[in-house]
Amino acid sequence: MGLWFTEKQTENFGITMKVNRTLHTEQTEFQKLDMVETEEWGNMLLLDGMVMTSIRDEFVYHEMVAHVPLFTHPNPKNILVVGGGDGGVIREVLKHPSVKKATLVEIDGKVIEYSKKYLPEIAGKLDDERVEVKVDDGFMHIANSENEYDVIMVDSTEPVGPAVNLFTKGFYAGISKALKEDGLFVAQSDNPWFKADLIRNVQKDVKEIFPITRLYIANIPTYPSGMWAFTLGSKKYDPLEVSEDRFHDIDTKYYTKELHKAAFVLPKFVSDLTK
Amino acid sequence: MGLWFTEKQTENFGITMKVNRTLHTEQTEFQKLDMVETEEWGNMLLLDGMVMTSIRDEFVYHEMVAHVPLFTHPNPKNILVVGGGDGGVIREVLKHPSVKKATLVEIDGKVIEYSKKYLPEIAGKLDDERVEVKVDDGFMHIANSENEYDVIMVDSTEPVGPAVNLFTKGFYAGISKALKEDGLFVAQSDNPWFKADLIRNVQKDVKEIFPITRLYIANIPTYPSGMWAFTLGSKKYDPLEVSEDRFHDIDTKYYTKELHKAAFVLPKFVSDLTK
Repeated sequence: MGLWFTEKQTENFGITMKVNRTLHTEQTEFQKLDMVETEEWGNMLLLDGMVMTSIRDEFVYHEMVAHVPLFTHPNPKNILVVGGGDGGVIREVLKHPSVKKATLVEIDGKVIEYSKKYLPEIAGKLDDERVEVKVDDGFMHIANSENEYDVIMVDSTEPVGPAVNLFTKGFYAGISKALKEDGLFVAQSDNPWFKADLIRNVQKDVKEIFPITRLYIANIPTYPSGMWAFTLGSKKYDPLEVSEDRFHDIDTKYYTKELHKAAFVLPKFVSDLTK
Repeated sequence: MGLWFTEKQTENFGITMKVNRTLHTEQTEFQKLDMVETEEWGNMLLLDGMVMTSIRDEFVYHEMVAHVPLFTHPNPKNILVVGGGDGGVIREVLKHPSVKKATLVEIDGKVIEYSKKYLPEIAGKLDDERVEVKVDDGFMHIANSENEYDVIMVDSTEPVGPAVNLFTKGFYAGISKALKEDGLFVAQSDNPWFKADLIRNVQKDVKEIFPITRLYIANIPTYPSGMWAFTLGSKKYDPLEVSEDRFHDIDTKYYTKELHKAAFVLPKFVSDLTK
């Protein structure tokens, strides 16, 4: 049958896929990094044995993290991406002409290096002149920023390993401080089927800091359960109140202006996690 | 590691899960039937090695197949379910007080027998006095019906084996004949990631017969890609035009009246399949 990679997404369930070859394997300072060529999904980045992104389905995550907050803010100019060393969120951010500067703060330089090498379709915009790439601790970068960003996107790994601080109330308080007075942020929040408690806790923590707190979902086939959740916290602008004329044409494969609002209409058991 | 069941959902990708024990295995007249107890999803029905339903996530499929068409029709009384021998769709249909009769036509009596035995939470309403269960060929039942049903739900397996006739234009023409003049139907239509051509073909065929043809989606974690599609064909009523006062309270875990419409707001690459 050849080589197959299996990710146990829970103790008792996982996904499995054919791997044509391993392109790179390394224990970095922070995590195990594997770049593999899969038959179904194309080149794929794994961190600590978990699927991070693949050529075939990366557009869902990257579009939905970027365009929902960027179309919610009326004039997003200065953007921060925490994590996201593969460059996919940055690529989408740059599709918005209002954006003057996008800063990427990724803790693990090896993620950037090998994404550029093996995922050029995703990482290809990291050298854009509007982009500043910093290899640094996102938590500390946030702690040292004040009244600076219009939109912050938290594109982290799971709350194990290097990302554990990115799921704390202190981090959300730091984000609030780092944002301008009308700023907003979005963070990936895992999935409602296997991580209901995590979503409930993030919602509770963000609500205590941001007057507008929302949850939205997207379908990502290589992520656990296929349903991925995103938490949006905003000081002023509500993603559900975006007027039609704010949307401009943008080249996407998943996001649409209609989906911008429909993504917040949650299945009942998911909606219950936000109450 | 013990016993794990792996379903190859494509040649190169699949899901894998821990199985505590096999409850029943049989080659029926039509297909291989396995009932297994899984650690993650509870008892699960497999047909020809493909996941059909599980205790933990069955509510998504059954609610979304049943309630979208039943709330679209203003007064659904006579209902036909083709396939669906596990009884889950019937259970949801009976939540609508307007329904006077629900007929289940399942080709494989063994599916009914072992669902009653091992999936009682799903199959428990098959003995309701409003339900008639027929072990028969759904294609032939449709061919012999005329102007009879308000709503037809096609809860079939994939278009291999016994269900191959249920994905043909002749079948949709038969459904149209079997429906009353204001009737509508819904059919499960696999997933947009791996079966784009199938969805495109079903949309094309149904559009040639029904004036209103729609596609909607739901997240089912044990089905390929986690995103499942449903085709709705209607002679008169549009699921997107349901007035607010038509919805009544109903006990669900996935479906809501807001999701009724949001489920039709498709990701761009899915929407493109309907054009």
